[in-house]
Amino acid sequence: MNEIKNRLDALRLEMLKQNLDAFYISGTDPHSSEYLLEKWKTREFITGFTGSYGVVAITHEEAGLWTDSRYFIQAEEQLKGSGVKMFKHREPDTVSPEQWLSEKLKPESKVGLEAQTVTVNGFRALNRELGAKGIALVKTVDFFDKIWNNRHEIPHSLVYDFPLKYAGISRKEKWEQLAAELKKADADFHVISMLDELAWMFNLRGDMVNFSPVFTGYGVVGKNEMLLFTKKTGIQPQLLAQLEKEKISVFEYENFSAWLNETKGTKIFIDPSTLNYSAFEILEKNGNSFVEGTSLAALQKARKNSVELQGFSNAMVKDGVAMVEFLYWIRQNIGNSPITEYTVGRKLDEIRSKQEGYKGESFPPIVGYKNHGAIVHLSVGTYNALPLEPEGILLIDSGGQYINGTTDITRTIALGEVTAQQKIDFTLVLKGMIALSTVVFPVGTAGCQLDILARKPLLERGLNYGHGTGHGVGHFLNVHEGPVSIRHDFNPNPIEPGMVFSNEPGIYRNELYGIRIENLIVCIEKEENEFGKFLGFETLTLCPVDTSLIDFELLEPAEKEWLNAYHLRVKNELMPHLNKEHQSFLAEITLLV
Amino acid sequence: MNEIKNRLDALRLEMLKQNLDAFYISGTDPHSSEYLLEKWKTREFITGFTGSYGVVAITHEEAGLWTDSRYFIQAEEQLKGSGVKMFKHREPDTVSPEQWLSEKLKPESKVGLEAQTVTVNGFRALNRELGAKGIALVKTVDFFDKIWNNRHEIPHSLVYDFPLKYAGISRKEKWEQLAAELKKADADFHVISMLDELAWMFNLRGDMVNFSPVFTGYGVVGKNEMLLFTKKTGIQPQLLAQLEKEKISVFEYENFSAWLNETKGTKIFIDPSTLNYSAFEILEKNGNSFVEGTSLAALQKARKNSVELQGFSNAMVKDGVAMVEFLYWIRQNIGNSPITEYTVGRKLDEIRSKQEGYKGESFPPIVGYKNHGAIVHLSVGTYNALPLEPEGILLIDSGGQYINGTTDITRTIALGEVTAQQKIDFTLVLKGMIALSTVVFPVGTAGCQLDILARKPLLERGLNYGHGTGHGVGHFLNVHEGPVSIRHDFNPNPIEPGMVFSNEPGIYRNELYGIRIENLIVCIEKEENEFGKFLGFETLTLCPVDTSLIDFELLEPAEKEWLNAYHLRVKNELMPHLNKEHQSFLAEITLLV
Repeated sequence: MNEIKNRLDALRLEMLKQNLDAFYISGTDPHSSEYLLEKWKTREFITGFTGSYGVVAITHEEAGLWTDSRYFIQAEEQLKGSGVKMFKHREPDTVSPEQWLSEKLKPESKVGLEAQTVTVNGFRALNRELGAKGIALVKTVDFFDKIWNNRHEIPHSLVYDFPLKYAGISRKEKWEQLAAELKKADADFHVISMLDELAWMFNLRGDMVNFSPVFTGYGVVGKNEMLLFTKKTGIQPQLLAQLEKEKISVFEYENFSAWLNETKGTKIFIDPSTLNYSAFEILEKNGNSFVEGTSLAALQKARKNSVELQGFSNAMVKDGVAMVEFLYWIRQNIGNSPITEYTVGRKLDEIRSKQEGYKGESFPPIVGYKNHGAIVHLSVGTYNALPLEPEGILLIDSGGQYINGTTDITRTIALGEVTAQQKIDFTLVLKGMIALSTVVFPVGTAGCQLDILARKPLLERGLNYGHGTGHGVGHFLNVHEGPVSIRHDFNPNPIEPGMVFSNEPGIYRNELYGIRIENLIVCIEKEENEFGKFLGFETLTLCPVDTSLIDFELLEPAEKEWLNAYHLRVKNELMPHLNKEHQSFLAEITLLV
Repeated sequence: MNEIKNRLDALRLEMLKQNLDAFYISGTDPHSSEYLLEKWKTREFITGFTGSYGVVAITHEEAGLWTDSRYFIQAEEQLKGSGVKMFKHREPDTVSPEQWLSEKLKPESKVGLEAQTVTVNGFRALNRELGAKGIALVKTVDFFDKIWNNRHEIPHSLVYDFPLKYAGISRKEKWEQLAAELKKADADFHVISMLDELAWMFNLRGDMVNFSPVFTGYGVVGKNEMLLFTKKTGIQPQLLAQLEKEKISVFEYENFSAWLNETKGTKIFIDPSTLNYSAFEILEKNGNSFVEGTSLAALQKARKNSVELQGFSNAMVKDGVAMVEFLYWIRQNIGNSPITEYTVGRKLDEIRSKQEGYKGESFPPIVGYKNHGAIVHLSVGTYNALPLEPEGILLIDSGGQYINGTTDITRTIALGEVTAQQKIDFTLVLKGMIALSTVVFPVGTAGCQLDILARKPLLERGLNYGHGTGHGVGHFLNVHEGPVSIRHDFNPNPIEPGMVFSNEPGIYRNELYGIRIENLIVCIEKEENEFGKFLGFETLTLCPVDTSLIDFELLEPAEKEWLNAYHLRVKNELMPHLNKEHQSFLAEITLLV
């Protein structure tokens, strides 16, 4: 904790030197990434908080960290003694970092920020709120370099070709599709700054950060140009030659600012919710005009092609096999050998790693036993992991990166006797999960219009969960991807065929237990007739649901049918890949209900 | 039809005189009204189309009318031979009037419009689309006066006090509430231009137009001023004195433009979706600034107070009694005396008019027999009304204005034997209606997030309906009121306690029949606990649903329970007000299912 205090002191000293009254830390990188390179972990550096989301605001007297409901407990814990206060972000009746700053500071105060780590929308919101009180934003330059000894550099790691047999569509075709979209939008270029969009666009992957096979860079796509800015040393000469042969110009990462400075009087398509303000500002100063909207690359990426979907199906079989082996391992060992929440996560990774094409975890596993299950995004280390006993319920949310797909699955299982209340809660969550799995909806429907279906069985009993129902999932890319979601929050982007989402309702009883059931689903076309065009979902995930946690009184016949059909499908798909022992285990846990 | 052609010729001649290449007619009045004074029926005057929604665009060579799915059949019929072509408005793959004009016209063309009948948002959209092609908008002055002989004036009709015993909240309290909202929004004034908002704000009513007890005028509300601009002759001296005593300044309607011209350098709250552009432009020229948002008066009006809700309940008993008498009349007379769709509407009005406090219809009744039922907003006259026979199904959508509430109800009834398919369709619609009636949802939910529940039983079978599920309903005011709705279209305004909506799913089999069931519902608080604050609905309408049209195989136990409980409540509430004959009829049609 002394280290954190020293860092805060150093930051405030630098604030003084630069004549700043406060400092704002978005907590992300120039690419709006969720999983960060060491270099960009400024939030963690300054507060000690290791969660994946949080904004920091610091004055000379006080400091605050704003994070969401997933991390309230973890943040309280990690911030103890740091002098940084936790605030709940975007909860009713809470103050936002912008409001906090405008309340704490006098007019004509100055707030520093690293504009390359703040999105265009983020900068505008901050400027609007603080500007109204006469507080100015000051764009600092390499602020953290000055106070962070031995700050990491961007690593020179491998960037490799993602072959057509997995990608399904060539770089050339993607380029043509995007050029056609640009023409419709009447723009000359599309600037791509998010790393998953970049990897998708160029059919490349990297291994720079944990949990996602992306690499650092920027892309620019126009009718006649396809430019890639990245650490060139990471690209093997043969691949480099191949890219140049495809008329893709590859430049050093650092040269992107030269491109920004040289680009004048053009019309550029940008996504203000992801492009960083620093890049935008240069383009704006140079007299370029903008078409703003949801990233065209992100939208194209979200609609998975048939090869990508085939890859998903393939990865799901592997992940399902690993999950069955894992569930069997739990059953055999619970009460016999010491298992903790932490070792469960390690075991899962170990089992998955035996699967062909497995490249690592797609996010840090969330393993919550008993009351820990009620902490939505708990990340356990060896220091705080609960030991598992043959009683109560265990929530396991984990996922893998496979060369042909990304998985994300949550199962909640009974480790022994369970209560009637736990069964009721589990069954309500299952009913919501089935309702979303089976919905039919008209073309043009957005996820926020479907979200209620997954919550309905809970809402009817005065229950609810504080997170979204579904996030987009990338294809051997980010496990959380935009720009479409299934949440209570408004997001007008409609759900389209080929889009892959999680379907993960839950219920969390504070201090007692947490329940979540999560499958991945893909949007498919259902029917077209005189009443319109209808879409629905198909389930991708292949893993049994724990039927010992079901209160069958609460299931309707159609829901039982769905469950039986799902288990039959799981059996048919997984059996050929299991040994005898695992086969009989799977047969036993998928008996008809 | 010759008359319509002559009018079009006269309009084009006037276009020539004023050097215009096209003319745009929004089809509404300066107050964004649905039901118009004769003076403002410019769409009908120029095209002959009598529906309540439609935009007209006219060039020297062509003319188009854009209307929505409710009126496609009626418009095709009424436009025959007029030289005006019907276009489907806001349907997929259809051209909008703006696009049509920009395609038909050359750059530097001029399009005339009456800016006082176009909203701020409407003007901006038009200007954006046409401006992009270098086409200019020209604001004409009293254009229709020049071509419309004997055009109606705004009538000098009665404006009367709406007493506190019905309104529930005094003008003074409403003023204070609005002033508090204005303070929050940091604005000096709220300009009120919609007539129902005006009537609500000032606790006044009028009888200028059919179907809604409003009167023409504008209102301005600020911290220290409450100004009403209307035809003063309509207000009795005693009421005028009372208003002035309450510090409400009443001016002539025509003096509103003087107020606009004199108001300078203030900050004005406006709703750009309803304020007319002509008023906005003057305020803007005078250096006023604006806070734009959903009308504060509309939002307050939408949240009905306890007295208004008590009034609704009271009106529902009267309307329910009238409906039971009407259903009995149908049953006694079908096959015995000649009844047509048209006479059904007249009979309903006659029966309702026996109820105390009945002030007239709240909209033109929609009575659709057999294939006519599939025409969603059919308005039958004597010339096209189908005679009813003791067979098939009849859809009746009607409503009344009562001094203490506005009603809107649809019932679909069997006039004889019905088919299995009709029963299935009816039951699916009923299931959707029940689903919305019983939903529980978290505070902050918008109607577009609930709409799917009413459609779900239909969607599951590849069926759907092309209209919204619910509109707001005024309290002895407009039967269709904003700013909150339950539709598939996005409307982010959340549903709040006290808001009254229709709940009206349907299914329309082209050329065969239409089914719709509609109750009014009011949002109520359900529960607050550690999982949040939950809302739901209570049904206001009191009238049996035709159980002979139900396929009981498709109803779940909970749905049967809902129906039985509803019918029991209908019986309890209506029986004391019925004669013996009607009592036994009601008992018979509300038997337990």
